[in-house]
Amino acid sequence: MYFSMLITPKFGDIDGLGHVNNTVMPGWFEQARNMIYRCFNPELNFSDWNLILARFEVDFVKQLYFNQEVEIRTYISHIGNSSLEVYQEAWQNDQRCTKGKTVLVHFDFKKQKSIPISPDIRAKLETYLHHSDQVMV
Amino acid sequence: MYFSMLITPKFGDIDGLGHVNNTVMPGWFEQARNMIYRCFNPELNFSDWNLILARFEVDFVKQLYFNQEVEIRTYISHIGNSSLEVYQEAWQNDQRCTKGKTVLVHFDFKKQKSIPISPDIRAKLETYLHHSDQVMV
Amino acid sequence: MYFSMLITPKFGDIDGLGHVNNTVMPGWFEQARNMIYRCFNPELNFSDWNLILARFEVDFVKQLYFNQEVEIRTYISHIGNSSLEVYQEAWQNDQRCTKGKTVLVHFDFKKQKSIPISPDIRAKLETYLHHSDQVMV
Amino acid sequence: MYFSMLITPKFGDIDGLGHVNNTVMPGWFEQARNMIYRCFNPELNFSDWNLILARFEVDFVKQLYFNQEVEIRTYISHIGNSSLEVYQEAWQNDQRCTKGKTVLVHFDFKKQKSIPISPDIRAKLETYLHHSDQVMV
Repeated sequence: MYFSMLITPKFGDIDGLGHVNNTVMPGWFEQARNMIYRCFNPELNFSDWNLILARFEVDFVKQLYFNQEVEIRTYISHIGNSSLEVYQEAWQNDQRCTKGKTVLVHFDFKKQKSIPISPDIRAKLETYLHHSDQVMV
Repeated sequence: MYFSMLITPKFGDIDGLGHVNNTVMPGWFEQARNMIYRCFNPELNFSDWNLILARFEVDFVKQLYFNQEVEIRTYISHIGNSSLEVYQEAWQNDQRCTKGKTVLVHFDFKKQKSIPISPDIRAKLETYLHHSDQVMV
Repeated sequence: MYFSMLITPKFGDIDGLGHVNNTVMPGWFEQARNMIYRCFNPELNFSDWNLILARFEVDFVKQLYFNQEVEIRTYISHIGNSSLEVYQEAWQNDQRCTKGKTVLVHFDFKKQKSIPISPDIRAKLETYLHHSDQVMV
Repeated sequence: MYFSMLITPKFGDIDGLGHVNNTVMPGWFEQARNMIYRCFNPELNFSDWNLILARFEVDFVKQLYFNQEVEIRTYISHIGNSSLEVYQEAWQNDQRCTKGKTVLVHFDFKKQKSIPISPDIRAKLETYLHHSDQVMV
């Protein structure tokens, strides 16, 4: 199962080549990860924030254009002891145009160290779990 | 009548003060103006683009936060001979938090000059026309 | 006197019309206001932050392009009891292409109210003071 | 040898956790790649544009803050037949805080296919060539 979010490209997302600029994509993926952030922090409260982003990678497969909505599909591709990997795709006009992976770490900002993912958070995350070898095709 | 669009704030829209940063707002307003751009250019085709943005102003009335959706309400507050003024508001939690005005000019990029708004485009725009003295209260 | 800052446009700042997108400008102006923020908060420390942005307006006079640096000129156009107005211009190729005004309020976030600008901060700000009727021509 | 560019963080680059948001980094890296774009297209002319971005990855090693300038160091880590890999780092306060790789492809937009990198462009690029195993430590 994946989480689906529709995004309307805005005029300024398009660059001089007439397609969505590459720097726009991490923001769209971030926007679609709110549902994952809510698993860790239901009120999205900054004073209790407990996640840090360690890494992302994005592959630009096909160009995205201005005049149609974009669907962001968000999966969880791996759950480790204290970290997780999110796999996301951007679709437009029935084509997968971009794919990306983001590594998030469950983190205690006061102690400045990673902390294990608790069973109850893990259970919530597993709803969106999908093995990356299935979805990366 | 106004055009309504819902926006999900993303993590990076929030600045060090814990609210939506002011530089985010022109992008949200731009995104919500797509319906106006379609009145002038139904396919949103760059090669036929016929609008230029001359000016905007934004008033920040109340803070906007991360954990709730934001509704952008878009009105047309004035239609001139070759230009129009768009009035927009951002609402969250039943409060009007931001308001702004944008001036767009119907423009011929080849001749580099403004051109009158045709009767058929004017008719489409009038659907969203609202006198600014009514909505600016 | 004004504060000058040079900015290198990046590829994604350019939109489908081949010029710098309007939503980019509030960010460039914000970047150039750091010297004003330092008058109020020399270490730029968020826990002591004491300014809130109430309003901005931007006029797009000429198009800005990708292949040349942009100079942002920052003046203080008015100092009130607890607020100030910043006037800024973007220059490229010896032409003033954009101008804008921003209203900042000296603000106590704990008490959630505006506070007077102290004489020592006022003295620092006056270095960049320029009457807006002189610079708005 | 690397290309060095200094960037002044702006207020809105900082997120609710008090450090530079992850989505900011691809833009800073893009800004610093202008010198590479000029090797392929000295006038940075969109009508002759001949590069497409295929992929990027970014590792967030240490947090970046608001109150100090950031140095972006740009190397070319690999030159292939028609593509190249750019390796970049963000430094603040004598620490390497972020590192990233971007793959660019020399591309003919009319024919929609990749094209070999000519010897004269290759010679320009080699000025910044650095084997990635040296710089990735």
